[in-house]
Amino acid sequence: MLTIYGKAHSRHHGVELKDGRLSKSFESPRRAETILQRICATNLGDVISPHSYDASHYTRAHSGHYVDFLAKAWGEWKATGRTGEALPLVWPVRDLKTARLPNFIDGKLGFFSMDAGAPIGEHTWEAVAESANVALTGIDLIHNRAHAVFALCRPPGHHAGREYAGGYCYLNNAAIAAERALANGARRVAIIDVDFHHGNGTQDIFYARNDVLFASLHGDPNDSYPYFAGYADEAGEGVGYGYNLNLPLPHGTAWAEYSAALAHVVTSVCRFAADVLIVSLGVDTFEDDPISHFRLKTEDYLRMGEMLASMALPTLFVMEGGYLVDAIGTNAVNVLQGYEGAR
Amino acid sequence: MLTIYGKAHSRHHGVELKDGRLSKSFESPRRAETILQRICATNLGDVISPHSYDASHYTRAHSGHYVDFLAKAWGEWKATGRTGEALPLVWPVRDLKTARLPNFIDGKLGFFSMDAGAPIGEHTWEAVAESANVALTGIDLIHNRAHAVFALCRPPGHHAGREYAGGYCYLNNAAIAAERALANGARRVAIIDVDFHHGNGTQDIFYARNDVLFASLHGDPNDSYPYFAGYADEAGEGVGYGYNLNLPLPHGTAWAEYSAALAHVVTSVCRFAADVLIVSLGVDTFEDDPISHFRLKTEDYLRMGEMLASMALPTLFVMEGGYLVDAIGTNAVNVLQGYEGAR
Repeated sequence: MLTIYGKAHSRHHGVELKDGRLSKSFESPRRAETILQRICATNLGDVISPHSYDASHYTRAHSGHYVDFLAKAWGEWKATGRTGEALPLVWPVRDLKTARLPNFIDGKLGFFSMDAGAPIGEHTWEAVAESANVALTGIDLIHNRAHAVFALCRPPGHHAGREYAGGYCYLNNAAIAAERALANGARRVAIIDVDFHHGNGTQDIFYARNDVLFASLHGDPNDSYPYFAGYADEAGEGVGYGYNLNLPLPHGTAWAEYSAALAHVVTSVCRFAADVLIVSLGVDTFEDDPISHFRLKTEDYLRMGEMLASMALPTLFVMEGGYLVDAIGTNAVNVLQGYEGAR
Repeated sequence: MLTIYGKAHSRHHGVELKDGRLSKSFESPRRAETILQRICATNLGDVISPHSYDASHYTRAHSGHYVDFLAKAWGEWKATGRTGEALPLVWPVRDLKTARLPNFIDGKLGFFSMDAGAPIGEHTWEAVAESANVALTGIDLIHNRAHAVFALCRPPGHHAGREYAGGYCYLNNAAIAAERALANGARRVAIIDVDFHHGNGTQDIFYARNDVLFASLHGDPNDSYPYFAGYADEAGEGVGYGYNLNLPLPHGTAWAEYSAALAHVVTSVCRFAADVLIVSLGVDTFEDDPISHFRLKTEDYLRMGEMLASMALPTLFVMEGGYLVDAIGTNAVNVLQGYEGAR
C-alpha cells in the first residue's frame, strides 16, 4: 500500500488547555513520525510526497471565507502585537439571535471555531494545507487505479466543519478527499470514521447530502468530546436523511461490542453501493490512549483492517487521532496490514 | 449614598487566556477593595453587608438549570480528579442542528458559557451568590425609600445571559435586581449600561420584554468584545421591539461624543417613564484602561453622574467592569459623587 506523507506538519504543534492549564497538545509531530517509522519497518509499501493543490480544492468542502480566514489568521493575530498562538476566547453563544462575522481577529477566531482546541501559530496554515494535499494526492492515486492508499495526514481533519475549526482540526481532509472523488467521477462515496471521537465536522459537511454516506463509531457524546454532536438520532436532513449513521458506544467498549457495531456499518456501506470508501482512521480507541475511553487491543486493529477490506472497495485511509505515541505506529499500521492481508 | 459590600468575592480570582497564555485575570479582588477604600476616604456614606436571598431570587432572570449548574460545577469538575479551575473548552457551534445538555461536566461548561472568560474555582459560587445578594439588598433598600444605592458587586454580571456565563460574569446582578424591582411593585425598570463592553447578557434576558428598557453605550462589537452582540440594529423582539437600545461607539471615543450618546439614552429613559433606574456601572471607559478603547477622563465621571441624576429616578448603581485598579476607585466614586451633588 502506498503512503502519502509530507514534512510541513513537523513545525506545527499547538498548545491546549488541560485541567485549566495550557501546555503542548497531545496532537504532536511525533505522532506522524512514529507511524512513518512503523510503515518503513514493516515494508508496507512506498512513501511518496503530496502534490500541490490550490485552495479551490478545499472550498468544495469548506466555505471560501473560512479557508481565507485560516490562511490569514496568523498574520492578523500577529499584527495586533501578540506573539503566542491564536486561540478563540469568545464565540457566538447558542441562543444568539444573529451571528455576524466581526472585523477583529479575536471575533473571527470565535466565529470560525467550535472549541479552543485548534490554535493557530506561525506554521499552522502551511501544515494544514499540506495535510489536505496529502489526502487529495491519495484520492487522485485511487482515481488512477490504486486499490488502497494511506494518507498520513497531520493535522487531522474530522472535527473541522464547513466553517469551523476545532479538536486539532482545521481543514477536513476526509471531506476534501470525498469531494475530490466525486469530482473525479465517483457517484457515491462512503466515509467510515473509526476515531474514538465523533467526526462532527464530516457530519456537518455532508448532513444534507445523499451522495456521501457518513458512518461513525465513537464514544457517546453525553460523556465524551465533542459533546454536542454524535447522538444516534442525528440521521441527516433533507435528501440526506438516512445517510448519516452515528453509533455512540459507552466508555469501556472492547472489541466484541465494537466489532458488532462495525459489522453493522459495513452492512450499511454495502447497501449504499459506494464506489469509493474513505476511512477516517483514528486509533485512539486503544485501551491505553490517554484521552479516550475504549478498550481495543493491538491485535484488534488487524481484525478492523480485515473487516474494512471485506467491502472490496477502493479505499483511502486518512489519518485522524490516536495519542499514545508509542502505540499508534503499530496500531495504525495493523489496520493497514490487516486490510492488505485480507483482500 | 449607601454602599452594599460583602467579602466573599475576595477568595475568587480566576485565570484568563491572554495572548495564548493563561494568567490571573484583570478582574481581581483588589478592584472592589480599591473602590471600597475610596468610598471610605470620600465619606460617600455608610457601607452595609448584603442580606441573604435564596436561589429563587436568581431564577427570575436565569433558568433554574443554569443556576443549578453554577452551584454544582466546581464539585462535578473536582470529582473528575482535576484541580485547576473549570473552563469551557468546546461549545455548541453556531450552525449546530441541536444543542443538548450533555451529562459530563466538560460538556455542561460549554453549554452554559459564551466564552472562556468565566472560570469556576473552589470559591466562585460563594462569591457569585453574594454578589447577586449585594444587588438584591440594594434594590430592596430602594423599595424602602432609599433614593440611590451603590451595589459594589464583584464578580460583575452584565455579560451573563439567561443561560450562560462569560466575560468574568456568572449571575447577572443588574438583571436580578431589575426583576426584584418589578416583584417589589415597579411597573417599568430602565437599565443603562455604561461599561465599555456591551451588556450582552442583560440584553439577552430582557430582549423580548417591554417592562424593562435596556440601553447600552459601548465599544463597537465589530472591533470590541463581546463581538457577537451590541450592534445598533439589535432593537428587541416581539413586544420587546423598541425596548433595547444599543449605541456602539468607535475606538477613541472621548467625553464629547460619549456625552452626546448618553444624552440620547437619558432622553429615551425619560420617554419610557421608568419607576426605577439601574445603572450597570463600568469604568473601563477610562482612557488608561488596559483592555478597553475609549478616552474618558477622571473628571468626566462626575459629569456622567450628574447626567444620570437628571432623570430624578430612584437609582441602583451596580458595579460592572473597570480594570486599571489604581484609577477605578476614583472614577467609580466620581460617578456616585457627581450623582449625589446634582440631585
